[in-house]
Amino acid sequence: TQQLLSIPASRPRPFRVCNWDRSMRKGIMAQSLSELLHQAQTALLTPDPISLVLDEDGTAVETESFFQTLEEGTVLMALSKGQTWAASKTPGYQL
Amino acid sequence: TQQLLSIPASRPRPFRVCNWDRSMRKGIMAQSLSELLHQAQTALLTPDPISLVLDEDGTAVETESFFQTLEEGTVLMALSKGQTWAASKTPGYQL
Repeated sequence: TQQLLSIPASRPRPFRVCNWDRSMRKGIMAQSLSELLHQAQTALLTPDPISLVLDEDGTAVETESFFQTLEEGTVLMALSKGQTWAASKTPGYQL
Repeated sequence: TQQLLSIPASRPRPFRVCNWDRSMRKGIMAQSLSELLHQAQTALLTPDPISLVLDEDGTAVETESFFQTLEEGTVLMALSKGQTWAASKTPGYQL
């Protein structure tokens, strides 16, 4: 029989990606971190390579295995070189 | 029949590890404390060996058995020799 556990990891899942100042936010489907990096760079019209952090707390998402543990709908922030994450100023924001 | 109880302990789980001043935070997969220590040292570019404490309250995580009780997504702080934990100054920060 097939190993079913591997299927969720290979199916495209929805994420939300914002830019460093949260002025833009896009819904993006991706099945891997490398795909999301590519799609986000295109969707946010960023000329330079980006890195992705969790919008929630700035945790850097640098490995495919950690990426695969993220839930559908997770909000990530795309950062270009020199840009840094800062906590959202929206008061009362919580999970 | 297989011993199912051993599976949770041996499956890599996601953690979040920050450095002493919380200027960096990385998502890291690990299935054991020794693996997390190793991965965190690499991810945070720390030349020296580190120890890990809970970001929440500075509790030192020194044994594999205590580590295994931590929930997925737990935030840990990596400390090099001489560095100490201090409470986060972000008011109202909560999970």
